[in-house]
Amino acid sequence: MEGKNAVILLSGGLDSATVLAIATADGFRCHALSFRYGQRHEEEITAAVELARAHGVVEHVVIDIDLAQFGGSALTAEMEVPKHSDVREIGQGIPVTYVPARNTIFLSFGLAFAETRNADHIFIGVNALDYSGYPDCRPEFIEAFQKVAQLGTRAGQEGPGGVHIEAPLINMDKAEIIRRGRELGVDYRMTRSCYDPVGQLACGHCDACLLRKKGFDGNGLQDPIAYA
Amino acid sequence: MEGKNAVILLSGGLDSATVLAIATADGFRCHALSFRYGQRHEEEITAAVELARAHGVVEHVVIDIDLAQFGGSALTAEMEVPKHSDVREIGQGIPVTYVPARNTIFLSFGLAFAETRNADHIFIGVNALDYSGYPDCRPEFIEAFQKVAQLGTRAGQEGPGGVHIEAPLINMDKAEIIRRGRELGVDYRMTRSCYDPVGQLACGHCDACLLRKKGFDGNGLQDPIAYA
Repeated sequence: MEGKNAVILLSGGLDSATVLAIATADGFRCHALSFRYGQRHEEEITAAVELARAHGVVEHVVIDIDLAQFGGSALTAEMEVPKHSDVREIGQGIPVTYVPARNTIFLSFGLAFAETRNADHIFIGVNALDYSGYPDCRPEFIEAFQKVAQLGTRAGQEGPGGVHIEAPLINMDKAEIIRRGRELGVDYRMTRSCYDPVGQLACGHCDACLLRKKGFDGNGLQDPIAYA
Repeated sequence: MEGKNAVILLSGGLDSATVLAIATADGFRCHALSFRYGQRHEEEITAAVELARAHGVVEHVVIDIDLAQFGGSALTAEMEVPKHSDVREIGQGIPVTYVPARNTIFLSFGLAFAETRNADHIFIGVNALDYSGYPDCRPEFIEAFQKVAQLGTRAGQEGPGGVHIEAPLINMDKAEIIRRGRELGVDYRMTRSCYDPVGQLACGHCDACLLRKKGFDGNGLQDPIAYA
């Protein structure tokens, strides 16, 4: 794989930081892609910039897309982010923090970026075990998008190898993800997961904070970031 | 279908104008969606605004996405748009005017818009007969995206009817499209198709102009827009 180009969807969170480390370790030349999409937690972008630099990516593009123009999610509109005191309280079903079609949009931009960079691989940090019910994080969604990538692009139709959507975390739980990332030297202090930070501090009670803490707990570790 | 919401991808071109008329005639409440994506032919947006108003849409959202940041297409980067004197000279294969993953990106935003508006239908004006080889205009691409829409959204997973991608022109040639649009009262003077306009005038020689002229010819009509 030496020297092959890959696009990495890099949110600045724990999962995508780990994926960046995996792709780098696999020998890909990494082109990081982040989105400023009207999310409340703009800290994420700062984290993504720092992570991209730390892992020596070839380039890092930040795309502005105004999903807030549509509204409809607690992450982009004026809704309350649900808080819990324990990870077992995370609800079943799709939570209000679901951002309509977010991963479809991110992967679509990833496709465009990949085609213009001769990248045959797009890495995305979805995982279907420790997640909070988002439909666009499931394996069957990724498979369906793989087909779109193949059929809807020049690279898929005329390129030598097509376009491959890589979701290396899809069957890992948070503890395994953190274990793998630590082996590869990810500095999780740089990452941001919280949906509703209090200034620079993570809230500690949204789904993202609870799942993250569960991952560190599972390794007998303390999460290195600061909580409110 | 009376009163059901639909999202209409409205480029300002002949095809999407016809699709808007079809969806309106079918009784949908139409939410038009256009994109300012770094295309050379910004005239398109002006045309889309005029068409949306003429057809009495419920709302019209114009999204800014900077595809020029990626480059890689004659429509968004500094490349030459191919010109021909006859429609039969249009090449086989995917032309340089292909914009990487454009329809995938447009449909993704359409999905997000549809979910926030309780719209079960997304209309897109792709057609696979008189087109110039774009992979993301083919029926198999639309089918693949249909699956993404179903699997990757709340509406698809929890909604009563799911999300339907409607491509009513997919098996029509340009002459049939124009015939149908005229029956429904589309004023084609409002539409813009040219890839490389000269001021307000269509160039007359790019693939889009040639296919358009062929459509009017096929109806024994003169194209009502002005050419350079």
